[in-house]
Amino acid sequence: MAQRIGFAGLGIMGRGMAKNLLKAGYELTVYNRTRKSAEDLAALGAKVAETPADAARGNNVVITMLADPPAIESAVLGKGGVIEGLESGAILIDCSTVDPATTAAIAEAASANGAKFLDSPVAGSKDAAAKGELILMVGGEESVLEEVRPILEVVSSKIVYAGKSGLGTMLKLCFNLTVAHMTSAMSQALVLGVKSGLKPETIIETLMAGAIGCRFFEWKGGAIMDRDFATNFSLKLMHKDLHLVLNAGYTHNVPLPVVAAVEELFAMAKAHGEGEEDFCSVIKVLEDLAGVEVRRR
Amino acid sequence: MAQRIGFAGLGIMGRGMAKNLLKAGYELTVYNRTRKSAEDLAALGAKVAETPADAARGNNVVITMLADPPAIESAVLGKGGVIEGLESGAILIDCSTVDPATTAAIAEAASANGAKFLDSPVAGSKDAAAKGELILMVGGEESVLEEVRPILEVVSSKIVYAGKSGLGTMLKLCFNLTVAHMTSAMSQALVLGVKSGLKPETIIETLMAGAIGCRFFEWKGGAIMDRDFATNFSLKLMHKDLHLVLNAGYTHNVPLPVVAAVEELFAMAKAHGEGEEDFCSVIKVLEDLAGVEVRRR
Amino acid sequence: MAQRIGFAGLGIMGRGMAKNLLKAGYELTVYNRTRKSAEDLAALGAKVAETPADAARGNNVVITMLADPPAIESAVLGKGGVIEGLESGAILIDCSTVDPATTAAIAEAASANGAKFLDSPVAGSKDAAAKGELILMVGGEESVLEEVRPILEVVSSKIVYAGKSGLGTMLKLCFNLTVAHMTSAMSQALVLGVKSGLKPETIIETLMAGAIGCRFFEWKGGAIMDRDFATNFSLKLMHKDLHLVLNAGYTHNVPLPVVAAVEELFAMAKAHGEGEEDFCSVIKVLEDLAGVEVRRR
Amino acid sequence: MAQRIGFAGLGIMGRGMAKNLLKAGYELTVYNRTRKSAEDLAALGAKVAETPADAARGNNVVITMLADPPAIESAVLGKGGVIEGLESGAILIDCSTVDPATTAAIAEAASANGAKFLDSPVAGSKDAAAKGELILMVGGEESVLEEVRPILEVVSSKIVYAGKSGLGTMLKLCFNLTVAHMTSAMSQALVLGVKSGLKPETIIETLMAGAIGCRFFEWKGGAIMDRDFATNFSLKLMHKDLHLVLNAGYTHNVPLPVVAAVEELFAMAKAHGEGEEDFCSVIKVLEDLAGVEVRRR
Repeated sequence: MAQRIGFAGLGIMGRGMAKNLLKAGYELTVYNRTRKSAEDLAALGAKVAETPADAARGNNVVITMLADPPAIESAVLGKGGVIEGLESGAILIDCSTVDPATTAAIAEAASANGAKFLDSPVAGSKDAAAKGELILMVGGEESVLEEVRPILEVVSSKIVYAGKSGLGTMLKLCFNLTVAHMTSAMSQALVLGVKSGLKPETIIETLMAGAIGCRFFEWKGGAIMDRDFATNFSLKLMHKDLHLVLNAGYTHNVPLPVVAAVEELFAMAKAHGEGEEDFCSVIKVLEDLAGVEVRRR
Repeated sequence: MAQRIGFAGLGIMGRGMAKNLLKAGYELTVYNRTRKSAEDLAALGAKVAETPADAARGNNVVITMLADPPAIESAVLGKGGVIEGLESGAILIDCSTVDPATTAAIAEAASANGAKFLDSPVAGSKDAAAKGELILMVGGEESVLEEVRPILEVVSSKIVYAGKSGLGTMLKLCFNLTVAHMTSAMSQALVLGVKSGLKPETIIETLMAGAIGCRFFEWKGGAIMDRDFATNFSLKLMHKDLHLVLNAGYTHNVPLPVVAAVEELFAMAKAHGEGEEDFCSVIKVLEDLAGVEVRRR
Repeated sequence: MAQRIGFAGLGIMGRGMAKNLLKAGYELTVYNRTRKSAEDLAALGAKVAETPADAARGNNVVITMLADPPAIESAVLGKGGVIEGLESGAILIDCSTVDPATTAAIAEAASANGAKFLDSPVAGSKDAAAKGELILMVGGEESVLEEVRPILEVVSSKIVYAGKSGLGTMLKLCFNLTVAHMTSAMSQALVLGVKSGLKPETIIETLMAGAIGCRFFEWKGGAIMDRDFATNFSLKLMHKDLHLVLNAGYTHNVPLPVVAAVEELFAMAKAHGEGEEDFCSVIKVLEDLAGVEVRRR
Repeated sequence: MAQRIGFAGLGIMGRGMAKNLLKAGYELTVYNRTRKSAEDLAALGAKVAETPADAARGNNVVITMLADPPAIESAVLGKGGVIEGLESGAILIDCSTVDPATTAAIAEAASANGAKFLDSPVAGSKDAAAKGELILMVGGEESVLEEVRPILEVVSSKIVYAGKSGLGTMLKLCFNLTVAHMTSAMSQALVLGVKSGLKPETIIETLMAGAIGCRFFEWKGGAIMDRDFATNFSLKLMHKDLHLVLNAGYTHNVPLPVVAAVEELFAMAKAHGEGEEDFCSVIKVLEDLAGVEVRRR
C-alpha cells in the first residue's frame, strides 16, 4: 500500500526532502507558512494543506521540518497544528533540530493521540537535501524506525539509530557542535595565517593533508576564498543549535567551555549582520577586526 | 656526493626521522640531551656527538627537532649549541614548533655564520615519523628547499612550501590550532552525548558520516573509547603550541577568541595531570567534572 | 488599613523577608513547599496556607520568592498556584530572579485576573534579608510601586525603579553578572598569586586599596581565606542566573563573550560538587586544578 | 643627605611621578626616548640625560617607568641602557609592569653591577600619578624597601610589600586582571541592559548600591555615559598586562579560563581601533556589535 505522507515546513531543507518523496511516488500533502513554497510543490503533484493539522489529517506518516522551538510550538503543538490532525496509529517524524524539552513535548502529544513518534534531525546541506543524501539521526523505538525506513531512505544516504526518544536530537547537537568548532578553527587559522603572510590556499591544502583532511575544509574553505556565502545552512540556525547545546550542557550538568566560546563567536557574527548567510560567514567578523580579507590569490 | 647530516633532538619524533635518514643511507651525526637515545641510533650506524655544536660541525645539513623555545635557546643558540658548529654554506633545518620570534633568532644566527636556514615544522604522529610520512611545512628560500628536498622526502609524505622564513612555523601553528579545536569538539560531544544516553560509537560513526568525516575522528575517537592514551603527541606540547598561537595573535593583532578557550581547556587538562599523555587525553578533565567515562560499550 | 500579605517561598531569603514583615505588624499568610519552614513562621504569628493559591486568596498584596522558572511554573502559574487565588485589584510582587519570558508570563496571568504586577528581584545576602537591608530592583508601573513602597521598605535599604514590567528582572541579571565576574576575578587572582608565592592577605589588601576597593572583596576574600563557604547565596543559583543572562543575550542579540566564560567556570564548579555552597566556592575547582589552597597565613 | 635620583620613562605615569619627586626637592636626572618630555621637566629643575645609562650614572637611586618588556630590553638591559650606568650600591626601582622573566633579568643584571633591585609596579590613574596617590606593589628585600620608602612615599598613597623579588610584578598582574574583569562586567551589563530598555544611570546606581559598590563603577561608568575616553591608562597597555597574566598562568601551570576571555575581549577592542584610548573604551566593540550606544539620558 502506498503510504500517504503529510509534510510541514518547506524551507531550504524541507523543500528538497519533499521533492524527493514526490519523485519516489509518495502521495504528499504539504503545508508551509508562506503558501508560495507549498504551491511550487503542487506543480509536482503535492496536495496543498491550509493548516499543519490538515497536512497531518488522514496520513499514515507525517514529517515536520521546522526552524526552531517556537516554530514547533505554533505549527505542531499549537492551535491548528500537526497534533490536531494527527491520526491514531500514524507515525510523526520531526526532522527539525530543537531542544530535548521540545522533542519530549512533541513525543508526549503524539502519544496522547495514539500516534508514534521519531525525532530525526538531519545533517547535510541544501545540496544533500536536494540529492537525497542527508544523514538522519533517529531517536525513538527501533521498530518504528523500521516501519518508515523505506521513506527515510528516499531522503538520506545514511540513517543512524541514536537510541530512545530524544537521542536523535542529542546526536544532532553533538554533530553540529563539531561542525561549528571546525568552522571556527578554520576561520581563525585563515585570518591569522593570511595576516601573517600565508596564502589561504596553502592553509587549506595543509588542513587537507593529514588525518584531519576532509571534504569540509575544501568545501567551506573554498567558499570563503571565493567569497561565496550563499546559504546552505544559515549562520543564525547554527547559532541557535549552539545555544541548544549550551542548554543541554546546563540540563545535564556538563561543562562545555569551548562550546561557550564558539557560541559567542557565532553570536558576534550574527550581531555583525551575517545571520542569514551561510554559517561559514562567521569568518567575516574576525576579518573585519583583523583588517584582512581571505581571498584566493 | 653523499650529504652528511647533523641531527639534534631525538625525542618521540626526532628518533623516527633520524632512523629513516640512516636507512636511506645518509651519514648521520646525532646529539640528544639524554645520551641514551643517541646511543640507540649509534647501533644503527649514527655517530654520537658530545654537544649540539659537534653534531653540526663538518656537516652540509643540520636538522634540529626540539621541544620548545627554551630548548632552542640552549641547544641551538646557547653555549655549545648548533650555531657554534654550523659551517658556512651549510643548511640548517629546524623541524621544531616554536614561536616566530625564536624562528627569526635562529635564522639570524645561521645567516651570521654564512649558513642558510629553513623552518620546517612537521605535522604527524609518532607513527608517521616512524614511517617517513610526516607533513612538512617549510619556510625560507624556495631554492634552499630544493637543495634539501631529497632529504626531506625521506621523512615525509608531503612537503608544503609556506613562503618566506618563519611562515613554515606559522603554517604549523594554523594546523595545530585546528587539530586542537577538533579534539576539543569531539571530547565535549562525547562527554555530553554519553552523559545524555548516547553510545560513544554512535557519535563517532556520525562524525565520520558527512563532509567532516576524517581519519582523525576514527583514530582519536577510537583511542578514547579504548582508553588508550599512549603518547603520539603529548598534551603538554599541544598546549605549548596553543600558547604560541595566542602569542602570534597578540603580535599580529588578530583576536582569536575560540583559540583562547581551547588553550585554557588544555591548560586545565595539563593541570589535571595529563601533560605527558597523548593530547586526546584532554577529555579526561571533562569526564571527571561530568562524572562519566567514555568507553566502548 | 493594615494590608494583608500573602507570601510564598520561604527559602534562605524569603524567610528573612517574611519575618521582617511580621515584625513590622503585617498580617501574613505564608506558604512553603516543605511545610516546616512555614510552621516556623506560624510561631511568630503567620497563618500557614495549604497551597500557594490559599496564600494569595483574600490578600491585597502577594509576594513570591522562588528559586527558578520551574518553581514559578508550578507554584505560581500551575494548578493550585498563586494565580488561582489572586484577587482582582491585588498586587503581585515577584521577588524571584527568573528569565524575562517567565516574568512576562506572570505579568500576563496577573493581568488576566485583574491584578497588578511588579517584578522585584533582590540583591543581597541572607544577612541582608534578615536585617531588612536588601536592594530591590523593581519593574512595572511606577504608581503600583508607590502603593506598596511602605511594604517594600520593610525588607530593603534601597529600592531602584528599573522601568516597565520585566526591567526589574533585567537589572538584577546585570547586577549578578557583575558579582560573578568579580568573584571569578578574585578567585583567579588568589590562585595564581598564591601559587606564585604571594600571601592571599596581600592580594586582598591590594584589591581594597584603589578605586575598585569595596566591601565585597574583604567579605568574600575573607570567607575564602577562612575556608568558610556557608551559603549566603548558593553557587547553583548564581549559575542559574548566569544562564539566564546568556539567554537574555541570545534574545536581545547581544554578544556576551566574557559572561559565557564566567558561566562555564560556574558550570565547572557546580559539576565539581559546589552547587549547594556559597557562590564564592567557585574558587575550589581552580584550586584543585592548580594544586593550591588559599588560606590565611 | 639629599638622594640623587635617575628617572627613565616619562610617559603618562612617569611624568607625574617625576614632577612630584622634583617638587619634594630631589635632584632628578631624567631620560625619555622622545626628548620633548624630558625638556618639559628640565623647566622644573631636572637634568636631562642623553641615554638611560646617563640617567643612571652617579645616582643612588634609579627609577624606571617603561611601557613593556621590549622597552625594558632596550632602555634598561640594552646598549646605552640603565644597567650600563648603574652604580655599585645604588638601588634600581622598576615601576613598569612587565612579565616575571623580564623582572628576573633586570634583577640579575642589577646584582651583577653590585646594585640592589626592587620591582615596584604601580596601580592608579594618570590623576593618581599627578597627585602622588599611586599604589605601589613592591617586590625585593624588605630592608631595601625601607631605604627608599621616603622616596616612594612621595609618589604614592599606599605601599604594599609583596614579598621577594618579582612578587611586586605578580601582585600588580593580580590587581589589573581584576580591574579588567570589572570593566568587562560593567561593559557587558551596560550594553545588555541598555539594549533591553534600562537607563544606564540605573545600572550604575545599582552597581554602586551593594557590597560591590566602589568608586570605580561611578568613575568609569560615568566616563562611558559621558563618552569621555581620554586616556588614564591605555587599552593597549591593559591588553598587554592581560597577556602577561596569561603567560604567568602558563608558567605557573594555573588555568585562568575567564582571564583568557577577558584578554580576547581587549584584543577585539584593540583590533577595533581603541588601543590608544582609555581601557574603558573596551565597551565600544560590544556597542558596535549590539547596535547601541551607552549614553546618559
